[in-house]
Formats: sequence, structure tokens, C-alpha cells
Amino acid sequence: MNADGTHDILNDPLSIEEPLEIRIGTKPFVVTMRTPGNDKELAAGFLATEGIIDNPLQIKELAHCKLAAFPENTVQVRLSEGIDSSKIVSERYGAISASCGICGKMAIESVSRALSEINSKLTVQRSTLLTLPESLAEKQSDFLHTGGLHAAALFREDGELVCLREDVGRHNAVDKALGYAFQQSMWPLTEYIMMVSGRLSFEIVQKSLAAGIPILVAVSAPSSLAVSLAREKGQTLVGFLRPPTLNIYSHPQRIL
Amino acid sequence: MNADGTHDILNDPLSIEEPLEIRIGTKPFVVTMRTPGNDKELAAGFLATEGIIDNPLQIKELAHCKLAAFPENTVQVRLSEGIDSSKIVSERYGAISASCGICGKMAIESVSRALSEINSKLTVQRSTLLTLPESLAEKQSDFLHTGGLHAAALFREDGELVCLREDVGRHNAVDKALGYAFQQSMWPLTEYIMMVSGRLSFEIVQKSLAAGIPILVAVSAPSSLAVSLAREKGQTLVGFLRPPTLNIYSHPQRIL
Repeated sequence: MNADGTHDILNDPLSIEEPLEIRIGTKPFVVTMRTPGNDKELAAGFLATEGIIDNPLQIKELAHCKLAAFPENTVQVRLSEGIDSSKIVSERYGAISASCGICGKMAIESVSRALSEINSKLTVQRSTLLTLPESLAEKQSDFLHTGGLHAAALFREDGELVCLREDVGRHNAVDKALGYAFQQSMWPLTEYIMMVSGRLSFEIVQKSLAAGIPILVAVSAPSSLAVSLAREKGQTLVGFLRPPTLNIYSHPQRIL
Repeated sequence: MNADGTHDILNDPLSIEEPLEIRIGTKPFVVTMRTPGNDKELAAGFLATEGIIDNPLQIKELAHCKLAAFPENTVQVRLSEGIDSSKIVSERYGAISASCGICGKMAIESVSRALSEINSKLTVQRSTLLTLPESLAEKQSDFLHTGGLHAAALFREDGELVCLREDVGRHNAVDKALGYAFQQSMWPLTEYIMMVSGRLSFEIVQKSLAAGIPILVAVSAPSSLAVSLAREKGQTLVGFLRPPTLNIYSHPQRIL
């Protein structure tokens, strides 16, 4: 509907949202609403950022499941023997329960046990950080058209874009980008900067810490618990990266 | 960090994110990362939008749990006898499994069984819809300061704001607003318009349909599956409500 009250019939492009079931062996493990594409990266990234696997060799097989009713929406993973897939930590899957206590400090402690402190000497020029949003926007496909996709990207310290992934789910975009790097045996990502298009939640910080990311950057705001976790684990958190300004929330020594 | 390279020390207000555990009886039911405040509405709204209860009288007791280790982050609900809390439908809680099939069409069918078609003669003037974003922005507290909160609001057909709730989680803001109305015995909300600050996912449409909302409006884009579900269930979906324009994705007859 236009300003003058007239109508246009739009073929407005929509972000595709479809369920993906990840199976471990033949057993359904988790279902996530995602944008189709890079499904295997998403599955690998999910398993790695949730702390279930820490080495790509632990994935014996990873493929769309041809025997499923909807093969394009089902991915099957075969893991090395002895991998415990019950130790998933994310609250998103209902797995943080009373046992971990239920305040912010306890939530941090519950995921902290599984997460190492960031061990990285990486630094980045402030001027380089300020180029990232444009670099991201240049490469984004659907987002500019539909306004409905989140993006996550990995950059080198000189600002070179290594990998960009998009999804209707913020956590899925992050899992895809980190899953790509995981499958390329690039983990831990101690020499990389991750940037996300939206806000920074506790969960996104948690996933990036699992991958060893020393500098995490967002276009919008972090939450209180995201900042607390980053501070505790030695990660540099940058928010509101909107040139010509940015906010640093933790460990500013990495920004030159 | 400023444009000229100098630094300010900021007391940047952050959106608070803390876990909330909802217990049914003494049993932990779900944990969600939320912004503290309106916790009882959140719990009631969650149970209602997930189809576990459909009448406020089914809640016998709802209070922060004084005996929990962190009473302010624990809410305990006592339901009427015979309420089955296992029939939760949202994928967010890992409960859509292989049994519901795993394509968009099947996802819709799986939630459709629990959701009635919208039965409402409500119409709204286009000019009224165009006033909603300003009305929302006027009443939003934290969002403008931190950029980190989602909002969900209920409006009457004349554009009067009935209720506004904010949260770091989009689904939580929706549960709080709908939970308020549920507790006030206003359900089904066949004479109300709901507006959300961000994008429209399948899950948000699902929750609004559970409440009977005939017109759902967002500042940003809907996903493909959100549009499909709204079309199937007779709900009017409006996206990109950015005066002076808006996009109508389904059932435009309600916009005059």
C-alpha cells in the first residue's frame, strides 16, 4: 500500500523458513526452523558450538537423509563411538534445568565449565573494524531484499571476509558460519573476528566462545548477560558498530 | 569510540537478560532467557500460547517460588487437575519431532491441529495502522535507550494501545503481552490488533493464532512459513509497517 492510498500487487521476496531435523544416527536429535542451504554446516556447527564435538574427525558421516519423508529437511550425522550427545548446554533446547541454578551468575557458571578462556593475541585496528559493516552489506544476498535474514560472518584481522552465512534464525546463521570453519579444520578461531547483523545475546557469545573467537562484533546491542560472559572469558565485545562510531563492552585492549 | 578516534567512558544501558525457570507444580518445565519483569504474565502467556491451557481459571496458583535458590528467577504454576502439560507444540522447546513430519507443509499441519481458524469481523482503517509505530515508540521504555529489546503490543481497532511489553526475546515479549490479556480474561482476542517490533516468524504467528488475533502487524519482514500459516488460518498479516507505506501478505479484506 502506497503513501497515496493506492495498491501495488507485490511479489515481495520472503525469507524462506523451513524446519530442519538433525538426526544422530537414526534418532531425531533437534529440530530448528532455518533457511534452507548450508544444512550440513549448520548441523556440524550446532554440534560443535554446543560442545558435543570438538574435532571434525568425530563426524564419520553427515548427509541429507535419503530415507526420510522429507530428505531436503532432514540431516543425518554419524559420530565417532563414545561421543555423548546428551551434554548439550543451550537453554534454547530446554536443557538448562534446575540443576544449574537459575540466576545469571549460575547460568554463566553452568556454561563456563564447558568453555575455555579465550587465548589469543589477536588485535585489530579500529579503522578496520569500521569497514566491516560495508563489507558485510556488499556480500549479503537476501537480507537487503527481504529484511528478514540475520547474517554472521568471519573476518581476518585485515578485514578480509572469509565466510558469510544468512538465516532467518540468528543462532542458525552463527552455527552455519562457525560450522563452515569447523569443517575446514580452522577451529579454534583465535585469529578471527566474528560479526553478526543483529543483537548479541548470551547464546551467541556462548557459541562464539566455544569456537575460540577473540573479537565478537555486532551492529546492535549486547544483553547484560552477554557482556558478563564475555568479560569473564576474556572476549572482546563490540556493539553498535555503526561507522563512524562503535562501543566496546569488554577487553578493549584488542582494539588498536 | 568517537569518529575522531577519542574515547568516552560509557555507562551504556544494557538490556537485562536473565534465565527464568517455569515450574509446573514442583517440576521444572522450561527455562527461557528473558528480561525480568512481568514474569507471571510471561508464564501464563507461554502456557496459553503453547496450547496447554485455554482458560485463566485453569491456573490455580502462579507465583515466584520462595523456596527456590533464586526466587526472582523462578515461577511456580499450579494447574487444574487433568491438564496435560506434555502437549507443548513449539519447536523452540525441541518438541516438534519426527512424528510431525519435517517439511513446511507438515510443520503447518502439526500446529494447525491445535489452532482454530480466525473467526473475526474486525476491520481497521489503513490510516489507523499507520499511527501504530509512533504510538509504540512513545510508550517503549528501554528499547530506544539500548536498542536491545523487542516489543509486542495490543491495540484496539481505533489505534488505542491496550498493553505493551518488552523483552530481549521476541517470543517472550509476545508471551507477556498475550499473557496479560489472558489473565484479564480477554481471550480470544478477536477484536484486537497485535504489533511486534521486529520480524514475523512462524512461531510468532502460531502464538498469535492461539490467542485468536485477526490482524498481526510487524515493522519488519515475515518469513515464508509465517505467511503460509496466516493464509491458511485466515489471519491478516502486515509487514514493513513503515509509514507512509505497509505491505499486506494475507487476507487484505480487513484493511480498509
